Amino acid sequence: MRTLAAELSGHIGSEATLCGWVHRVRDLGKVCFVLVRDRSGTVQVVLEANPGVTLESVVRTTGIVVASPKAPGGVELQAKALEVVAAAAPDLPVPINQEPGKLSLEAILDNRMLTLRNPQILSIFRVQATILAAFADHLRSEGFTEIKTSKLIGTGTEGGTGLFAVDYFDGKMYLTQSPQLYKQAMVASGLERVFEIGPAYRAEKHDTPRHINEFVSLDVETAWIDSEQDLMDLETRILASVFARVREKNAKDLEAWKATTPEPGATARIPRVSHDGAREIVAKETGRKVYEITPEGERTLCEWALKTAGIEAVFVYAYPRKSRPFYTLPAEGNRTHAFDLLFRGLEITSGGMRINRYEEVVESAKAFGLEPEGLADYLSIFKYGCPPHGGFAIGLERFTQKLLGLASVKEASLFPRDRKRTRP
Amino acid sequence: MRTLAAELSGHIGSEATLCGWVHRVRDLGKVCFVLVRDRSGTVQVVLEANPGVTLESVVRTTGIVVASPKAPGGVELQAKALEVVAAAAPDLPVPINQEPGKLSLEAILDNRMLTLRNPQILSIFRVQATILAAFADHLRSEGFTEIKTSKLIGTGTEGGTGLFAVDYFDGKMYLTQSPQLYKQAMVASGLERVFEIGPAYRAEKHDTPRHINEFVSLDVETAWIDSEQDLMDLETRILASVFARVREKNAKDLEAWKATTPEPGATARIPRVSHDGAREIVAKETGRKVYEITPEGERTLCEWALKTAGIEAVFVYAYPRKSRPFYTLPAEGNRTHAFDLLFRGLEITSGGMRINRYEEVVESAKAFGLEPEGLADYLSIFKYGCPPHGGFAIGLERFTQKLLGLASVKEASLFPRDRKRTRP
Repeated sequence: MRTLAAELSGHIGSEATLCGWVHRVRDLGKVCFVLVRDRSGTVQVVLEANPGVTLESVVRTTGIVVASPKAPGGVELQAKALEVVAAAAPDLPVPINQEPGKLSLEAILDNRMLTLRNPQILSIFRVQATILAAFADHLRSEGFTEIKTSKLIGTGTEGGTGLFAVDYFDGKMYLTQSPQLYKQAMVASGLERVFEIGPAYRAEKHDTPRHINEFVSLDVETAWIDSEQDLMDLETRILASVFARVREKNAKDLEAWKATTPEPGATARIPRVSHDGAREIVAKETGRKVYEITPEGERTLCEWALKTAGIEAVFVYAYPRKSRPFYTLPAEGNRTHAFDLLFRGLEITSGGMRINRYEEVVESAKAFGLEPEGLADYLSIFKYGCPPHGGFAIGLERFTQKLLGLASVKEASLFPRDRKRTRP
Repeated sequence: MRTLAAELSGHIGSEATLCGWVHRVRDLGKVCFVLVRDRSGTVQVVLEANPGVTLESVVRTTGIVVASPKAPGGVELQAKALEVVAAAAPDLPVPINQEPGKLSLEAILDNRMLTLRNPQILSIFRVQATILAAFADHLRSEGFTEIKTSKLIGTGTEGGTGLFAVDYFDGKMYLTQSPQLYKQAMVASGLERVFEIGPAYRAEKHDTPRHINEFVSLDVETAWIDSEQDLMDLETRILASVFARVREKNAKDLEAWKATTPEPGATARIPRVSHDGAREIVAKETGRKVYEITPEGERTLCEWALKTAGIEAVFVYAYPRKSRPFYTLPAEGNRTHAFDLLFRGLEITSGGMRINRYEEVVESAKAFGLEPEGLADYLSIFKYGCPPHGGFAIGLERFTQKLLGLASVKEASLFPRDRKRTRP
């Protein structure tokens, strides 16, 4: 029977078997401390002699659990020997047991198979797993149905730019940029409320701390809403659930990054400002003229929100029509019923109401230079009765990045893909 | 305030507003019945005059809820008028309100955007959503962490055949056949127990009722197990959870397909037979010589299991080495520690123990004609200490197909992709 490191404190005075990786070896001559790491944490194994084991070797050891106020975690295992289950080569290309801050992003990602073993780096993905679970659970609690749609499409719904082409038997297909078309189809299918968690692709040449070419999109679409305010309300509730769950499940992981989530209750205070209003705020805060909301403007808006509402997030709505996709529901004055959510200085969500009437979708597609013929399947959704609806998508990696305060979104992807990074 | 069809019975005598699609219109002259469908079901709206509304139009109507033993669901809404929120064109290319059994698979899939509105067809994906949730919840309850890995890889881990190529900036990448490499990496990263739900691709030209070129793979990988028996135990527990949840959440959907799940408790009785033993059973049952277990043999084995164990499923283990991928842990006599799960006549799972020692992986890769140089990232998992581990994958669509008794796996994919089917 194996006991996890984190459970050992419940077995003081008893024999226990520990299985894990050799995290650190400290040889004091008369005694040798081997720190063993497993999925629950690390624990100190006390041996009389240095077992001569390489770092990262996989070991099993049985001993007596002893309270030890000086040891990390307050317990240690006093053992006679270590059994080496799988030896690690002695030439580790990167250190595992040091602070990852000392490694460059390049070194971390080039050696990804190994750097993920660093407890601080790995903690990112424990938080990410909690986000995934909390997002899905929250939506299920509101009657949403999870869907899985194809990532291979015949043509882009938003025009053909930015798509990766796939050799598909004798023809070409493309990797989806978002499940937009399909989630609207599933609202109209009668499910009404759907969500999807899946990969999405952007064939863009950006190389910035906030771009990756493959990301996980947390997509939501829902019918019978009155305005984009309902969508912001829904996202607010989702965020509150996610923050509460991360606080509950990931206290140690947050600590590893010296990060805190906003208070779940504070999400209700996220300011909602129109695009014009947002420009005015940025102008006022910076004392400069503002034509567009740049990444710097997004940071300014979030700082303003923290100052005025106590939470570093802002909903911006009423975007100009030309800056949103053709399926966006237009509003008065060349505006739209679309919104973004900025969180800690970064856009992590785009969403909005969609056009639900056939003639209006056709007209809008034409106005955006799209051929209705190429959109026949999509248009059939509207031709045969589609309720008013809207939705949004949260970028999982960006959200994780900002929740933990990571310098680059690439750190929040297990195996990130960018223009040059195609492995591991 | 909207009331769902399924909730109306709680509002008898009160006014309620119903929103949904026009499912059927029955004009009896003095009175007109309009069946309105929403995400919860259908309900009869009684009007004095035919509202002249087309099938599938989206409507809103307010009236008095009245108990009506003869009406479907035992209640009806007596209303004065229907508000048409979004009219449907009158030329529906396929009927929505008839049994889908009358349509060919081609017609169902060609008109997928509309045929998904058929309540029986849509129920498939309610069941699928429950499978997704139950699978993830079960694994979380056993300490597994959800991961999301890249679907774009540089080379195939199982050789280069059967891969779709992607134009990736100036080079080529490929769509993954499975997250095999990555889930092993995440076991070795220290998470130990991981699962992933994501798309997987097979560039195979098959056109059968059990093949699609894009499917959702429910992947599991776990460390510190002693044998493939532990993996079969784990899958048994997962299946029991899924069956219990589907029974709880999807009684109406099961009924729509005249389907039943096995009893959750019966999963513990799933026979486990060796590959040789399975061949003998098929030989005995059919009276024929058996060299390989064919799809027909898989059906025979499941019939045998139903007869002898009361559940239509069999685990087959100890597969010959040549029939399994290079990373499979070999066993004595050119056998492996690999297994399949056959369910209702179809293989829905492949899995097994993996090699966890560096030299053995290298040797096995060479024996399978793979270049260790091309596997450098993968091999680093083992070079630096990897615990004994194994895992398996369940094909979501095949599982759904067999749970509901669908004729083709394509029916269990929202937007299936095959060699010719690239839309919608």
